[in-house]
Amino acid sequence: MPKITDKVAAWREQNPGKTPFSFEYFPPKTEAGVRNLTARMEKMGQMRPMWIDVTWGAGGSTADTTLSLCETAMDVTGLDVLMHLTCTNVTIDTTRQVLQRCKEKGLCNILALRGDPPANASEWTATEGGFAHAVDLVRFIRKEFGDYFCIGVAAYPEGHIDAESFDKDLRYYKEKVDAGADFGVTQLFYDPNLYFEFLRKSHAIGVPKSFDVFPGIMPIQSYAGFKRMTGLCKTFVPKAIDEALELIKDNENAVKEYGIEQAVDMCKELMKGGAPGLHLYTLNLEKSATAICEKLGLVDETVKMMKEYPFNRSTGTRGVESTRPIFWAQRTKSYVERTKGWNEFPDGRFGKRDEKTFKEPQLTAIAEDAAKKLSNEWSFSDEAGLSALFAEFLTPGSVVTQLPWCAEKPGLEMVGIRNQLMEMCKAGMLTINSQARVNGALSTDLVYGWGPAGGVVYQKAYVEFFCSPAMLQTLQEHFSKKKDVEWMAISKNGDMKTCANGVGQVTAVTWGVFKGSEIQQPTVVDASSFRAWKDEAFALWDMFLDVSQNEDQKRIVTNIADSWYLVNVVDNNFLSGDLFKGMVDLTIAKTAKRHGA
Amino acid sequence: MPKITDKVAAWREQNPGKTPFSFEYFPPKTEAGVRNLTARMEKMGQMRPMWIDVTWGAGGSTADTTLSLCETAMDVTGLDVLMHLTCTNVTIDTTRQVLQRCKEKGLCNILALRGDPPANASEWTATEGGFAHAVDLVRFIRKEFGDYFCIGVAAYPEGHIDAESFDKDLRYYKEKVDAGADFGVTQLFYDPNLYFEFLRKSHAIGVPKSFDVFPGIMPIQSYAGFKRMTGLCKTFVPKAIDEALELIKDNENAVKEYGIEQAVDMCKELMKGGAPGLHLYTLNLEKSATAICEKLGLVDETVKMMKEYPFNRSTGTRGVESTRPIFWAQRTKSYVERTKGWNEFPDGRFGKRDEKTFKEPQLTAIAEDAAKKLSNEWSFSDEAGLSALFAEFLTPGSVVTQLPWCAEKPGLEMVGIRNQLMEMCKAGMLTINSQARVNGALSTDLVYGWGPAGGVVYQKAYVEFFCSPAMLQTLQEHFSKKKDVEWMAISKNGDMKTCANGVGQVTAVTWGVFKGSEIQQPTVVDASSFRAWKDEAFALWDMFLDVSQNEDQKRIVTNIADSWYLVNVVDNNFLSGDLFKGMVDLTIAKTAKRHGA
Repeated sequence: MPKITDKVAAWREQNPGKTPFSFEYFPPKTEAGVRNLTARMEKMGQMRPMWIDVTWGAGGSTADTTLSLCETAMDVTGLDVLMHLTCTNVTIDTTRQVLQRCKEKGLCNILALRGDPPANASEWTATEGGFAHAVDLVRFIRKEFGDYFCIGVAAYPEGHIDAESFDKDLRYYKEKVDAGADFGVTQLFYDPNLYFEFLRKSHAIGVPKSFDVFPGIMPIQSYAGFKRMTGLCKTFVPKAIDEALELIKDNENAVKEYGIEQAVDMCKELMKGGAPGLHLYTLNLEKSATAICEKLGLVDETVKMMKEYPFNRSTGTRGVESTRPIFWAQRTKSYVERTKGWNEFPDGRFGKRDEKTFKEPQLTAIAEDAAKKLSNEWSFSDEAGLSALFAEFLTPGSVVTQLPWCAEKPGLEMVGIRNQLMEMCKAGMLTINSQARVNGALSTDLVYGWGPAGGVVYQKAYVEFFCSPAMLQTLQEHFSKKKDVEWMAISKNGDMKTCANGVGQVTAVTWGVFKGSEIQQPTVVDASSFRAWKDEAFALWDMFLDVSQNEDQKRIVTNIADSWYLVNVVDNNFLSGDLFKGMVDLTIAKTAKRHGA
Repeated sequence: MPKITDKVAAWREQNPGKTPFSFEYFPPKTEAGVRNLTARMEKMGQMRPMWIDVTWGAGGSTADTTLSLCETAMDVTGLDVLMHLTCTNVTIDTTRQVLQRCKEKGLCNILALRGDPPANASEWTATEGGFAHAVDLVRFIRKEFGDYFCIGVAAYPEGHIDAESFDKDLRYYKEKVDAGADFGVTQLFYDPNLYFEFLRKSHAIGVPKSFDVFPGIMPIQSYAGFKRMTGLCKTFVPKAIDEALELIKDNENAVKEYGIEQAVDMCKELMKGGAPGLHLYTLNLEKSATAICEKLGLVDETVKMMKEYPFNRSTGTRGVESTRPIFWAQRTKSYVERTKGWNEFPDGRFGKRDEKTFKEPQLTAIAEDAAKKLSNEWSFSDEAGLSALFAEFLTPGSVVTQLPWCAEKPGLEMVGIRNQLMEMCKAGMLTINSQARVNGALSTDLVYGWGPAGGVVYQKAYVEFFCSPAMLQTLQEHFSKKKDVEWMAISKNGDMKTCANGVGQVTAVTWGVFKGSEIQQPTVVDASSFRAWKDEAFALWDMFLDVSQNEDQKRIVTNIADSWYLVNVVDNNFLSGDLFKGMVDLTIAKTAKRHGA
């Protein structure tokens, strides 16, 4: 992960006249909250914020959640992270350990704060064996870790509430800068003049003009919240805002809309005045922050649609991982968890993998939700009904929005093969992963493209599904005549079958050719990973059995889990193969034969 | 490298009814001899012999040459090697060291022989601290190295000349089999019945029928040589051969032709009788052995035209190296030498290379020959004359058959860009390496193809040349408008220039997509290797200065060596770029401008 100051400097050079933005989140208190926030960070990540912050649990109470959210953001979502760290309730030793852990993970951006008083205390007091002021924390980080960390500090345009005077607080601020801070982020404010006034005063006492201070914008999202927050922080609220809110305070939506408008107007003034970027306090909500960035024209819609890579690459010490097995395409968090601690990505690549080195599958609450819905909400009472649900999942706009194996409905890239996949589902091949053949699309293609502009990307047709042993037999015969097709099938207990000549050791199924770089090969198929994935894929059927109360459903799924095969098929002929048509024709032929007999 | 017995078994399964063949060479006494033999082994290697032998210098005198020839065959030519090892003049300790070195290099096939007496001795005697019989050597290898080595032993269809009797020799032979030999190769003979008779007798005393004995065929190549050899070995010569030779003994060509015919006839009988393969004593000559294999239909002409890989991959412990810089395409031996001892080919790939880890360039005699010819034979007296020679090198059938940078004239794969390259030479860009753009050719394509059938291969257009600083300036302007083109230029003293936005770290210029495998990326361009290659490329101009006596030429070349740049250019647009046309147009425009002014 780059230091924020370096990243901003490089970005500015490439985007002259543009303003970067960043999003701040806080650690939720429940597991469901964490899950939702993770999904939200991923979605908002597509807007390419310069970085995201995760606040340090007030009083250190949710510190572990902060750390794990930061790690997920880095390793799963591929975001650059600024982690908050406060002096509240922590000893120097604990702080050292936390920073050490951050360094190990490659998290190099820290916002060093004193922090709020603990929830139960009326005023802030230093912990025994801890720090008294933010400046102590800054000094400590510099002393113990040298230049490793890029350190941000808080700037209070209206002075800190606990400060004796604004001037005294300003001097504290300068001390932090002098102690080695790299940039500042302001406390929330609603009058842009206060921001510029603060800068002027800080420059006057010797803070260098080159020291970037990112204004912190907290969009008004609810009347009560706004009142509470401005009361707590003693924030100056311009009369116009007060008056406007009083008129609409009972209309939640109107307040939100007003909050967006107000923030946009304020940001425009800040941008005009030369603010180095905009830091948005999202309060873990998507709508306001997104709307503000969009209205300000900060989001490049094309860039947003572009994928940097087929999967999000870690910004931490997980390393420049350029290749993954295709099996986890819909379960990237699980993949990251199961391969945690692997530090062998030779030359950024895949290498041979041993299924024994994969950690145990961890079944997430998202999958559990999907299993519950499959059983109760969408429901089915026979095998055909289950197949129909898999087919419905592939239908745009249908109610079946997820499956235990698939967190999200398939996107645009499925359009060319969707109908064929649906036919396959109905014929008893319960598809859970697939991709179309692509014989060279531009990397800027909005459906299949990824990577830097000017490249060319390719895909081999791929499909993965559960099917009965009888169906596998039929497929086996069908594929025996297709020399370009390679397949593997495996049952829950590990009975593995492959095509007659066996399968290659590692088969590339997605690759790209780019200017000035080696051939990129993001997704592959290999037998070892498939075995590790099998455990997870079948465990998700078992999870269904755990959450379902319906005996008919349980009987059907038990049969599938115990006797069916998980099958994956690669068509190596990426120039002109027609894998899906062949498989659909097969099911039609089979049906006709059955009817004819 | 596979064990010969394993390779033959696998080959048989895939080529039922066919007969494999192998070639035997001996270590030449001079450096020029070694050079010629290396080239010959490479050429004959295209016929895909099952293995090649290198004999152990008689009396151990050329043992070092044997070892280094074996290593070259493995690492540069990519052949499977059977190294002879004898008991003559060596101690057990030396033998152990030699075998240890073989093992380190991955050379696992040894033909264990007693050996001939040393040149100055009339009869064989064991060396003090050495072995007395071949069987001792076999036992020693098994005892000290277990199953690592695949051991061949000699079989004497007429009994060994030093043996008391045929039966006694046959018992010695069985002892060698019992001691752990894996296969046999026979001494030369000219009567196939002797071979079959020998097999029958050996089976009668208990040698298993599954023990392969490869008949050794020494084609008659000259009358005198044949007489000397059959006299020395007391070989039975059938009357028909004697009579035939007496009639033509003064006609060298007729003897050779007869030798081929005789060998073909004998081989046919051997094949009919079920010989497991044919082992040809080539006497380091190409014609007879090649003709025999071809007449017998043992050579698959299509396979011969196919490249297994764009470069010959080592069969030894150098490892499965799948990527090399394109710069050494014409100087593979030098590349292998300069990277000797590198054991970091992560995951069979390239990895980042540091120019400091390259060993010093070694200028070969082949390059020296070329430099001499350039100066004296083909000659030039001004810069235009030198340019013309570079252009002539590209002309099929012209007298200029090599350049210090290029051991061989360009092949068919140059056809599409040859005229453009010639124009470039004439305009003062002295090209030494290039390839055409290929947007997907079948791997079986006879011009551009490589790798297993059913794949698709690609190339980015590439060209490398020397040019003057003025020409570089012109090119720099030209390329500044071509966003897909990346280039690097470097002078002898290391002044490096690149395109405005710099070049990528490692750019793939040749790659292939195959069934069941990762994307293959055999050749790349990278700045570090280019710096290492620069030393070699400019040293070859210096070599010219050393061998040339012509002051005019020396003046021209001194100027080139001291002030010109070595330039490489990659056009990343492999879909539709037209690198060469652009460069030729440029030179035409320049000429026109000059003439117009």
